[in-house]
Amino acid sequence: MSEQDSTDSEIRVLLVGLGAIGCEIAKLLLKKRNVKIVGAVDLDPSKVGKDLGNVIGLKEPLGVTVLESIKDFDAEAEIAVHATTSFLDKAYPQILELIKRGLNVISTCEELSYPYVVDEEISRRIDETAREHNVTVLGTGINPGFLMDTLVITLTSVCQDIKRICVERVIDAAKRRLPFQRKIGAGLDVRDFKEKIVKGEITGHVGLKQSIAMIADAVGWRIDRIIEEPVEPIIAEKEVKTNYVVVKPKMVAGLSQKAHGIAKNEKVISLIFKAYVGAVEEYDSITIEGIPMIRERISPCIHGDAGTVAIIVNLIPKVINAPSGLKTMKDLQVPSAVLDDMQFHLKSKKI
Amino acid sequence: MSEQDSTDSEIRVLLVGLGAIGCEIAKLLLKKRNVKIVGAVDLDPSKVGKDLGNVIGLKEPLGVTVLESIKDFDAEAEIAVHATTSFLDKAYPQILELIKRGLNVISTCEELSYPYVVDEEISRRIDETAREHNVTVLGTGINPGFLMDTLVITLTSVCQDIKRICVERVIDAAKRRLPFQRKIGAGLDVRDFKEKIVKGEITGHVGLKQSIAMIADAVGWRIDRIIEEPVEPIIAEKEVKTNYVVVKPKMVAGLSQKAHGIAKNEKVISLIFKAYVGAVEEYDSITIEGIPMIRERISPCIHGDAGTVAIIVNLIPKVINAPSGLKTMKDLQVPSAVLDDMQFHLKSKKI
Repeated sequence: MSEQDSTDSEIRVLLVGLGAIGCEIAKLLLKKRNVKIVGAVDLDPSKVGKDLGNVIGLKEPLGVTVLESIKDFDAEAEIAVHATTSFLDKAYPQILELIKRGLNVISTCEELSYPYVVDEEISRRIDETAREHNVTVLGTGINPGFLMDTLVITLTSVCQDIKRICVERVIDAAKRRLPFQRKIGAGLDVRDFKEKIVKGEITGHVGLKQSIAMIADAVGWRIDRIIEEPVEPIIAEKEVKTNYVVVKPKMVAGLSQKAHGIAKNEKVISLIFKAYVGAVEEYDSITIEGIPMIRERISPCIHGDAGTVAIIVNLIPKVINAPSGLKTMKDLQVPSAVLDDMQFHLKSKKI
Repeated sequence: MSEQDSTDSEIRVLLVGLGAIGCEIAKLLLKKRNVKIVGAVDLDPSKVGKDLGNVIGLKEPLGVTVLESIKDFDAEAEIAVHATTSFLDKAYPQILELIKRGLNVISTCEELSYPYVVDEEISRRIDETAREHNVTVLGTGINPGFLMDTLVITLTSVCQDIKRICVERVIDAAKRRLPFQRKIGAGLDVRDFKEKIVKGEITGHVGLKQSIAMIADAVGWRIDRIIEEPVEPIIAEKEVKTNYVVVKPKMVAGLSQKAHGIAKNEKVISLIFKAYVGAVEEYDSITIEGIPMIRERISPCIHGDAGTVAIIVNLIPKVINAPSGLKTMKDLQVPSAVLDDMQFHLKSKKI
């Protein structure tokens, strides 16, 4: 124990972003051995200056004061856990700053999971700067990052040939908290829902495009384009009372989104995402029409927040191990849980 | 096309072992671009000296004459596909010879998928010799290699904590060919079955121990020991007629095997393998009791031979890309299909 518990072998983590996910990541990190939170940053004035333990709801302080800016962080760390935004343009300056501080970066930013389809120039600059500073950058999470891409890619490895891939994620929003129910428009009438879509107040799930592009790239499929169908409301057929909203018949129960990867005018990759109050079955399914045929199903579906928190923490050593540059999940080592000692998973040196 | 089709970019493969699996691998390789079979070896006198095309049932010759020994191969190749045996002691001298010829090796040898639990000394020697010759060695297949280990490990990556893992593979042997039905004792009476077990004529599935050890290693679980329960016959309840054997009530329909990884006197990893004529449902299931809970199921189960052939071919570029030494699936990049051009997947240089 003594050697593993020494400070030298601890992985030092800077947390950037203390929203719901960032706080849960902090709590999970505290349960693992040989990893230490050495800094925390959040813009929120109600958090800045407080002890991190206080912010995440612990009784004891952690001795880490929440800073307002990455610039204020003056300790050493191996990796930054970045959880501030879904969008690449907002994440970009923060990530660049972390890279220039010599930090590896693992981020929940959905668009960063496969950023080439959002902005090639930004992606190139992140990659180049990361290589210059000998660090690795990865965007991941449960989705995008796992359920609709990495797991699909992994399953293709037992296929001799593939004609078509269809992935479906169905979430019963009745089991989720209010912010999630709001995010999908549960309880709105259809006109309000459509207005909020137009205003960008309901964005739907961010990441279908990223997942399609990552799958195509991983298997070497040349797709001509990615089509994202408009976000559609799912209309309630009967009344559903949740702990938060009550959805009456003809009101919006949630939303449905579809995206397709097109090759030679065929939909070769289709992703379907549905989140609504009252879904009869929650599941994540993957169908690969190929040789052999694969019908895979996780039921109930994996809880998004719990899974994202897990994969971010579990991937920390893999990101540190990886060659430098901007990476996506398909480039990394087979992902795995870190059950206890994070140091155990740090095997190779940075190249 | 012109550049990719040039000989320079082709991955050159030496096939070692032309049994049922080796021949299917050859056929699949012929369907992929930028990979070329440049040699073939098999001990069988009925194959030696013949053209490989003839041996695998093509109308046209391939211009590759089957050699009796690896020693007779005098061309250049990047990788050897090795498919001669399930057992490490038999594979070892062949693999060592291939390594010394400067070839990367991908093998169907079940015990090689995680050879440390079979023979640490042999494993160490393979690793050292591979590093000396700057090549990579991997044992893989559908099982061990994927369904009961790599896929399980991949799913653990979305878990914050894990209490117990249970994996089950159930195969309806009625849908398989005669050699498979024989291998599991279908149609024998119970006494004959038990005799064949004692004589080693029925070995059951080889690999449960390897899969357990690989999972434990990947997640950092310290297991105290691995218990393999004796292979048990599954007794037919009603008559089942297959295209090959007929199984009458009270005869052996097939076999059941269980193995467990034990930590602190608890079965923390359990693998159950059943192959018998008349299984009502064929499936591969993974249950992870953890946070979150994961219940995953592939139904019907993935066809063993088809999947093994696929993963061997698909992993060729990943093995070439990997750092040198003896690797197991958990060490490699996220696996994926090679849909067309194998060269596309060759991105990094050997370290």
